[in-house]
Amino acid sequence: MSRQFLAEGGITLTGGGYTIVGVVAVVALVALAIGYVLLKEVLAAGQGTAKMQDIAKAVQEGAAAYLKRQRNTLAIFGVIVFLLLFALPADDWSERIGRSIFFLVGAVFSFTIGYLGMWLATQANLRVAAASREEGGREKAMRVAFRTGGVVGMITVGLGLFGAAIVVLVYTGQAPKVLEGFGFGAALIAMFMRVGGGIFTKAADVGADLVGKVEQGIPEDDPRNAATIADNVGDNVGDCAGMAADLFESYAVMLVAALILGSSAFGAHGLIFPLIVPAIGVITAVIGVYITKARAGEGGLVTINRSFYISAVISAVLSAVAAFIYLPSSFADFGEGFAHNTGNPAVIATVAVIIGIVLAALILRITGYYTGTEHKPVKDVGKTSETGAATVILSGISVGFESAVYTALVIAAAVFGAFLLGGGVALFAVALAGTGLLTTVGVIVAMDTFGPVSDNAQGIAEMSGDVDEKAAQILTELDAVGNTTKAITKGIAIATAVLAATALFGSYSDAISKAVGSTGSFVANIVSPETLVGVIVGAAVVFLFSGLAVNAVSRAAGAVVYEVRRQFREIPGIMEGTTRPEYGRVVDIVTRDSLRELATPGLLAVFAPIAVGFGLGTGALAGYLAGAIATGTLMAIFLANSGGAWDNAKKLVEDGNHGGKGSDAHEATIIGDTVGDPFKDTAGPAINPLIKVMNLVSVLIAPAVVTLTLGGGADTTWRIVIAVVAVAVIVAAIVVSKRRGSVMAETPAEAKA
Amino acid sequence: MSRQFLAEGGITLTGGGYTIVGVVAVVALVALAIGYVLLKEVLAAGQGTAKMQDIAKAVQEGAAAYLKRQRNTLAIFGVIVFLLLFALPADDWSERIGRSIFFLVGAVFSFTIGYLGMWLATQANLRVAAASREEGGREKAMRVAFRTGGVVGMITVGLGLFGAAIVVLVYTGQAPKVLEGFGFGAALIAMFMRVGGGIFTKAADVGADLVGKVEQGIPEDDPRNAATIADNVGDNVGDCAGMAADLFESYAVMLVAALILGSSAFGAHGLIFPLIVPAIGVITAVIGVYITKARAGEGGLVTINRSFYISAVISAVLSAVAAFIYLPSSFADFGEGFAHNTGNPAVIATVAVIIGIVLAALILRITGYYTGTEHKPVKDVGKTSETGAATVILSGISVGFESAVYTALVIAAAVFGAFLLGGGVALFAVALAGTGLLTTVGVIVAMDTFGPVSDNAQGIAEMSGDVDEKAAQILTELDAVGNTTKAITKGIAIATAVLAATALFGSYSDAISKAVGSTGSFVANIVSPETLVGVIVGAAVVFLFSGLAVNAVSRAAGAVVYEVRRQFREIPGIMEGTTRPEYGRVVDIVTRDSLRELATPGLLAVFAPIAVGFGLGTGALAGYLAGAIATGTLMAIFLANSGGAWDNAKKLVEDGNHGGKGSDAHEATIIGDTVGDPFKDTAGPAINPLIKVMNLVSVLIAPAVVTLTLGGGADTTWRIVIAVVAVAVIVAAIVVSKRRGSVMAETPAEAKA
Repeated sequence: MSRQFLAEGGITLTGGGYTIVGVVAVVALVALAIGYVLLKEVLAAGQGTAKMQDIAKAVQEGAAAYLKRQRNTLAIFGVIVFLLLFALPADDWSERIGRSIFFLVGAVFSFTIGYLGMWLATQANLRVAAASREEGGREKAMRVAFRTGGVVGMITVGLGLFGAAIVVLVYTGQAPKVLEGFGFGAALIAMFMRVGGGIFTKAADVGADLVGKVEQGIPEDDPRNAATIADNVGDNVGDCAGMAADLFESYAVMLVAALILGSSAFGAHGLIFPLIVPAIGVITAVIGVYITKARAGEGGLVTINRSFYISAVISAVLSAVAAFIYLPSSFADFGEGFAHNTGNPAVIATVAVIIGIVLAALILRITGYYTGTEHKPVKDVGKTSETGAATVILSGISVGFESAVYTALVIAAAVFGAFLLGGGVALFAVALAGTGLLTTVGVIVAMDTFGPVSDNAQGIAEMSGDVDEKAAQILTELDAVGNTTKAITKGIAIATAVLAATALFGSYSDAISKAVGSTGSFVANIVSPETLVGVIVGAAVVFLFSGLAVNAVSRAAGAVVYEVRRQFREIPGIMEGTTRPEYGRVVDIVTRDSLRELATPGLLAVFAPIAVGFGLGTGALAGYLAGAIATGTLMAIFLANSGGAWDNAKKLVEDGNHGGKGSDAHEATIIGDTVGDPFKDTAGPAINPLIKVMNLVSVLIAPAVVTLTLGGGADTTWRIVIAVVAVAVIVAAIVVSKRRGSVMAETPAEAKA
Repeated sequence: MSRQFLAEGGITLTGGGYTIVGVVAVVALVALAIGYVLLKEVLAAGQGTAKMQDIAKAVQEGAAAYLKRQRNTLAIFGVIVFLLLFALPADDWSERIGRSIFFLVGAVFSFTIGYLGMWLATQANLRVAAASREEGGREKAMRVAFRTGGVVGMITVGLGLFGAAIVVLVYTGQAPKVLEGFGFGAALIAMFMRVGGGIFTKAADVGADLVGKVEQGIPEDDPRNAATIADNVGDNVGDCAGMAADLFESYAVMLVAALILGSSAFGAHGLIFPLIVPAIGVITAVIGVYITKARAGEGGLVTINRSFYISAVISAVLSAVAAFIYLPSSFADFGEGFAHNTGNPAVIATVAVIIGIVLAALILRITGYYTGTEHKPVKDVGKTSETGAATVILSGISVGFESAVYTALVIAAAVFGAFLLGGGVALFAVALAGTGLLTTVGVIVAMDTFGPVSDNAQGIAEMSGDVDEKAAQILTELDAVGNTTKAITKGIAIATAVLAATALFGSYSDAISKAVGSTGSFVANIVSPETLVGVIVGAAVVFLFSGLAVNAVSRAAGAVVYEVRRQFREIPGIMEGTTRPEYGRVVDIVTRDSLRELATPGLLAVFAPIAVGFGLGTGALAGYLAGAIATGTLMAIFLANSGGAWDNAKKLVEDGNHGGKGSDAHEATIIGDTVGDPFKDTAGPAINPLIKVMNLVSVLIAPAVVTLTLGGGADTTWRIVIAVVAVAVIVAAIVVSKRRGSVMAETPAEAKA
């Protein structure tokens, strides 16, 4: 086994290296196998009464129908991008073809994971609801919910790691370029699934609440509300499908960023070590999932946190061991070209990975503090409900701002810490910190899936009426735990965005330096006006994207409101419970609207960097990315955590504080929660894939921008034409969405137009 | 008159130049004289009934008492900064002393203008209310209100221009360094006045509304509400004093930025031309103020806009004439050292100035569109009131996001456009665009002052009960016009922040290059992790500052709520109108609280750049400033415009739309307006001086950071000690403010603790 691959820049994989990557691929397959075992276990659980199964089936069908239509929409988009990718410069045909093919692989993987996550969740919802009715229901229900998360976690890390390992095996030195395609495919599809699913889930939720709770005074998940099935479908397509695709994307892009930088920092070792660390993460994730057992009397969050910390510590220890065994203690051992770097590679790698793991733990704690019902911030928001909705909104916004600041500072500190580790390989150290973060993704996905599954189980229980008081109590408790785990995931996801983006900056810089052909490296001086303009435009795009997402929810929710009102008005017997509302019509409306609405923010994400790059140049584009990363990080966390705090403040009041259910304070917190819905489940989580997509688009177009800039004459004309077309696409998309109106309080005729 | 000043870098003022600057100083004095004439006219107007005078007197006393206490607080702070400034590196003693002395001059000017603006407004309120009762009341009231603005406008531009001209006359080549002190003093005091006044006005307003309108169901400005006088005092100390100081600061810092860059771009001409343009602005502002006459049947805003456009056109024409007369057509004419620049200086200067004037006009239009009651966005927000408060909040946030994006893009386009004018003098072109913007400041201040004066006149009318239906109608109309003019001013102010900051970046760069002593210029590469970390931290500080400001209002408003409730409970006869509430106690409480609350955001603004600079280095500090500018611009406009849209949506409903006063829709818009209050009047407007303060602190400390960094050994220790102390100050300030609680719904005991 002494095969050697000669790679660009002289990077070769030795037989030993080849073996290790092969082992990593096997570990990835093992993860998939374990996922299958867990899946069998989940499916084997009891399925409750016929009525419960009926409801679950309606939800399953709605979710499947949505994803099928979304697949068709995205397929067209995917093919177009596939062809455009071909048009971009590449070193040779092998790279060009590999990049486009692996773009499709990344896209298909991303969609598949989303689909599986959603399918599985719809199966698990019913079984969790059923388990809650059995003897020892709390432990059984929690076990099914967490095992379900385990399946999704295993698939996410398994496919991500397998894809990356295969690329490294096949392409070796050219792997970075091909991986750009893989990451871009994953990120692009994940962004669409996050946006589309996010619009679906919140349009249905807000629409259902506005007519049901606010106008008619009937409880959540009441079967008389025509939007309830759509609401439950939304939990699956938004929180499950969107989230699973998003975390897969985070995993894939982070790996891509690390592998891109690896060979120039650590030689062949640099292509292998970033795969070893997440492979370790797979092992510890399995441990984490299997050790999650609720102890008597402890809260669900305590159980989950314990698993997280145990697997984090195991990951840290094993990664350190791997670093010291696999990596040499001197850069000179990597070969001639690396001897100028100082420091001990094994130490640098170990500390970087640990920085990533500690970062995950800190985000867990900060998010838990700001969004958990047992801590001061949410309690304070709850208190303000006594002075009305305005103060609830203001205090929630303060909590969001504050938590965003501390989370962003912790992420910034991690980047800076990794950067300080080594001047020569600073960017790679940042990427390695990212792989440290990745070791926790398996458990994180498991935690996250827990949320919507519990939420939906509660929905099925409520609608069927076949679940007793005690079982309902169990499901409510699991749901509250799910709220916090969901917020934590978003924090971790945005952290991967920052680390990956920082690392990808290196790739961007390299691409430009190479295209320019100078020996010096690319510099975008921030004190130069065009770079500063880029920073402002980048920050502006984050605001625009957030505003578009919130607006899309408002519009789609408006359509739901009018349809539910119409059914109450035109179909006799709904309110009395003698006639079933037409659930399917609401599902159809939300499906159609959310797929239509995802176009504008999606086009913005792809075309804005094209417009800035070709229009204002590479310096402005670098500034643009920095502005988008910085503002995006703060905005994403602000939106996620203020939304989480409002949701849990409402739960506090519903638990009997400040007047309890039905009081003025309760109404005030419902208003807060409704404002928070599109914040935390639509706009906020979509910013993470947005940043990745914009980064990867920039990396991909950078050589073309440089070529056209340097060409002069006709080339300059082309550059301007491309920029103008990109701006025109964005403007057209915004105008079209404006045409559909901008508020939910339109007349039914307007809403349908 | 052939005196010549030999300046640093070989810049000399010829006798002719000396004369021109002298003329500018005279123009500035003429502006002050015209202000005096207008003042006499305002004071000569009728003062209404004794009851009205009584109320006005109470407001005047409250406002004066607040500003007196604020002066004492700020004086201590000013002296400390004065001494710290001495410790910073300077080229020689003349520069060191000049910088510190002109820091005090800037600070005193800033405070004086704020004080005068406030004093004058309290005089004018009464007279506007009185005028509305007379024959032809509408025109008379409008005339008094606008003339009042004219006085403040004349003082603002007069003192700003006079200060800058004197510095140039006395220090010539050293003027830039001394001007940094002048600008810093102006910005620092303006920031404190914006923050303190903003907290005062909104704590009183929100507190008064929560108990009055929401709990007791009594109208705004009802004399039975103990917080009404405080509310009216707030309008004066926040909207008048804070705003006047802020616009003076914008004026001064923009001039400083232009003068700093002038000599290296245009030689001696560069020290003079940036003074000529605003001097022209003074002349056109006078014209603008005098031609503002309402035509029969036209809305107040139309009248005001007409004055703006007329003076803008005159400014543009006169500036072009001045440029072509004063500036040569070739850079070679500036002297040997300038011959390498290409292009025609007269053309560059003309286009740059016109870019600034067009920018002002565009901001006027965008802001008018997004916050005016007659356009779609506010109408849409009004519509959403039919589906409740949550949708009002969401649609207002969308409007804010959207308008922020377009305004930021327009500002970015102006920067980029000026930058494209000339590679060699690009930064100076940006600064000249800023001076173009300055030509509109006189009219802008006049427009802005209009708002609070009308608002207060309405308050006095309401409380006295001495104003009939027709007069009340006139005052309501003027108040609505004032709402939009206020939002416009904030947009213009933030635009000056971006232009000034971009220009000051050049100064920052120069300071570092000089301190490093290399021939190459300073580069902060944005693709380097430490710069990116700086960008993230800069964006985070804007979020933190905004959150702190909103929180401060909540806390201070909580104290008002408890005091007003206490008075209703403990003092018999208030509700029946037989006993007068203790207005003074509420004023005292708000005064104490807002002065206490301004410390934390103020310390953050000063110490955050110190912490970043000394802790992470000059590259990170450059990134920090860019992040703060980009995010600050968007955040400031988002906060100002969403607040403005909510306020005017409420007015729409109150005008009888969507159910009118007392409907559910009305209640929903009141909630929106209450959320918007601290957005638009506290956090939003304070971001403009925040950006300037952070920029100037960075420029001032840059040489010290470089010296300590290069020194090594003991110097490095000092660098870290300074950074740690700065962080400690910020953390301590935040902890202290946290200790005071973070929400308004505390028990009275907690609120007072």
